[in-house]
Amino acid sequence: MVRIGIAGLGTVGAGLVKLLRGAEPLRDEGIVIAGVSARARGRDRGVDLSGYVWFDDPVALAAAPDVDVLVELIGGAEGPARRAVETALARGAHVVTANKALLAVHGAALARLSEEKGGQVRFEAAVGGGVPMVKAVREGLAGARIQAVSGILNGTCNYLLTEMEASGRAYADVLADAQRLGYAEADPTMDVSGADAAHKIAILAGVAFGFAPALQDVAVEGVEGVALLDIRLVAKLGYRLKLLAKAERAGAGVRVHVHPALLPYQHPLAAVGGALNALVVDAEETGRLTFIGAGAGQGPTAAAVAADLVDLAHGARRPVFGRPLSAMRALAKAPPAEQGRYYLRLLVEDRPGVIAAVTDRLGKAGVSIESFLQDARHDTPDVPIVLTTQTTPRAALDAAVEEIASLHAVLRGPPRVIAIEDGH
Amino acid sequence: MVRIGIAGLGTVGAGLVKLLRGAEPLRDEGIVIAGVSARARGRDRGVDLSGYVWFDDPVALAAAPDVDVLVELIGGAEGPARRAVETALARGAHVVTANKALLAVHGAALARLSEEKGGQVRFEAAVGGGVPMVKAVREGLAGARIQAVSGILNGTCNYLLTEMEASGRAYADVLADAQRLGYAEADPTMDVSGADAAHKIAILAGVAFGFAPALQDVAVEGVEGVALLDIRLVAKLGYRLKLLAKAERAGAGVRVHVHPALLPYQHPLAAVGGALNALVVDAEETGRLTFIGAGAGQGPTAAAVAADLVDLAHGARRPVFGRPLSAMRALAKAPPAEQGRYYLRLLVEDRPGVIAAVTDRLGKAGVSIESFLQDARHDTPDVPIVLTTQTTPRAALDAAVEEIASLHAVLRGPPRVIAIEDGH
Repeated sequence: MVRIGIAGLGTVGAGLVKLLRGAEPLRDEGIVIAGVSARARGRDRGVDLSGYVWFDDPVALAAAPDVDVLVELIGGAEGPARRAVETALARGAHVVTANKALLAVHGAALARLSEEKGGQVRFEAAVGGGVPMVKAVREGLAGARIQAVSGILNGTCNYLLTEMEASGRAYADVLADAQRLGYAEADPTMDVSGADAAHKIAILAGVAFGFAPALQDVAVEGVEGVALLDIRLVAKLGYRLKLLAKAERAGAGVRVHVHPALLPYQHPLAAVGGALNALVVDAEETGRLTFIGAGAGQGPTAAAVAADLVDLAHGARRPVFGRPLSAMRALAKAPPAEQGRYYLRLLVEDRPGVIAAVTDRLGKAGVSIESFLQDARHDTPDVPIVLTTQTTPRAALDAAVEEIASLHAVLRGPPRVIAIEDGH
Repeated sequence: MVRIGIAGLGTVGAGLVKLLRGAEPLRDEGIVIAGVSARARGRDRGVDLSGYVWFDDPVALAAAPDVDVLVELIGGAEGPARRAVETALARGAHVVTANKALLAVHGAALARLSEEKGGQVRFEAAVGGGVPMVKAVREGLAGARIQAVSGILNGTCNYLLTEMEASGRAYADVLADAQRLGYAEADPTMDVSGADAAHKIAILAGVAFGFAPALQDVAVEGVEGVALLDIRLVAKLGYRLKLLAKAERAGAGVRVHVHPALLPYQHPLAAVGGALNALVVDAEETGRLTFIGAGAGQGPTAAAVAADLVDLAHGARRPVFGRPLSAMRALAKAPPAEQGRYYLRLLVEDRPGVIAAVTDRLGKAGVSIESFLQDARHDTPDVPIVLTTQTTPRAALDAAVEEIASLHAVLRGPPRVIAIEDGH
């Protein structure tokens, strides 16, 4: 029998209670709710909680001796969530959590507490919703040497980009709709800034490469700056614009970043639309693996929490990030990629000689152009010029763009550079 | 420390030895090779085996008291593989195996031995190669109620179908090429008959629905009968022909089948090309999940075996098919689907009135046509007529086809009916 305490009774917490009461296989596992905790006791959560011991304070729930597993669904890197989790771990109880911020910021400290006191920390629900990405990477690929994990890890951003492409409407319009439909929060900053995806890729980097996540080492750019023009133009070049979250080996270190990227249509992440999440794992022995599914929502997230509980009920034991602290390598933060293929979009004045001037500056900087597109369908006096480069040093491209910007009255808006993610 | 005995040193066995010697994280797990066994001691396997204790008899290896885990890579439902596995389990040792036939045929008996004596049985490598399908279904989705698992589980068949579509060449030609390239065995029967996929879907049905696999309950049709004409025609209708392996709840039972099926292009399995494997899981709480990757080969399969070994090294314990025998429901074999949407292709004589006669018979049988295509590009006096039905009883369609076949001199070849798999 595993006695659990559920701290936080929002959508996921209420969903978990429903799931544990409804599903016969889960009842067989002997998972019993020993107590629950939330801020507002009286609120209707769509499920009868009157039979459970109520704690006003989640830390008191975490400290209760008859709670074997604290299920932390409060959220946030600090405050009651952190205190409750630390309290449970300090007395050797297990923790199951959906709290990506807590893990991304305090992962190393929690791993230490876990090892010292013997409590497990499980967090399948923190990444990829109902898709068992953490389990697949930490356990299913424990026999493989992972080179990179690349994902679409924020459903809101992916929904916005998908809708912009499908409807031809601008970011602000689509965001307003998404907020009405519940696909985006009233304050969407955590999602659209890339912060949420950064938490998740930091955690996946931890389990993929066996080290504690380091959120401060993730280079982050969100989707706020994405122009409809670019979404339309990249499609003409055979690409799709996605918010890519990626962690990859680079030399002796690991590079972790979140940024808008061009994916060729044949890339497995390019076809992942709407609010779906997906992860691509490239490993030496297995080649490329792809995992796709719903990345959020009551059902998927509650099911992920329940799967962690079943694991614990079967006595599963594993270091928090796959390897014990003693075996964790100190993985250096790798610098941003020095070269790659890039998309460059310029808005220029529509007059003779401009294209020649632009290509001349690129050529002089040593930037080789792979494809070039001057968009005919424009309804302003400014013409978009779009090109993709061959593999080129980023510094050379930046220098060329600066040169072009200094040409008198040629540029009619800020240039846009986006990295191209190749299929391999 | 976990001491393993490797029985079978073919591609996968040799790959496992290489992997265990090469990968630092695996060495950290304390996995030690206590003995190896194969038929031909002298053969060069590309890896130095001189440091390991050699057993001529795999059963003796399985009986060796210093072997904690028997890694069975011999293959086959009977013979030395079965005897070695039973020997290990009978003394409470664990078994890791890639042997799908053994599990599909003797799964229930092995689960009983496992529960009685305490040894674990792990078989990630038996299904989906390097894609952790078994772990995802049995553990990652332990909190969800699975409705169906649908997969492309045989890389050889998928390669053949993909090549036929891409090259426009007939089955026999493409098969001969695949044999030269090593994508198909000299005797390809196990693959092309659907038997291999049947083993795998029987196992996945077991872990998805928590019961012992029953190979004899799997309805199987392979790819031998697939005509290039149909591959070409289904593409015109917006579908792709795939060998689908599927297990789904149907009433109080489970229906398990392997057969060629038409998948709409937007179905996640439709885009899975070449020798890749993929699995789609539909579950109540999580919605649809998709897993894609290499389904065979030395690296992927050895990595899957190694992942199972790491699990055991961490003390993971789980009933063989996810639920203990005592909790396993007796799942009835559900009969074949009584209705659905179908593709019907007829080769008819090219003369007036034939189409009217055909559609008349279909209408009288109550078969509603969804789309109809008379192929213009034909180079014989026989014209292919192709149609897809709306949801219709299979019996009605069969009756109509029989009627049509009885029309004097209309049909110029056997009619072909293929089920359409809808996207939901």
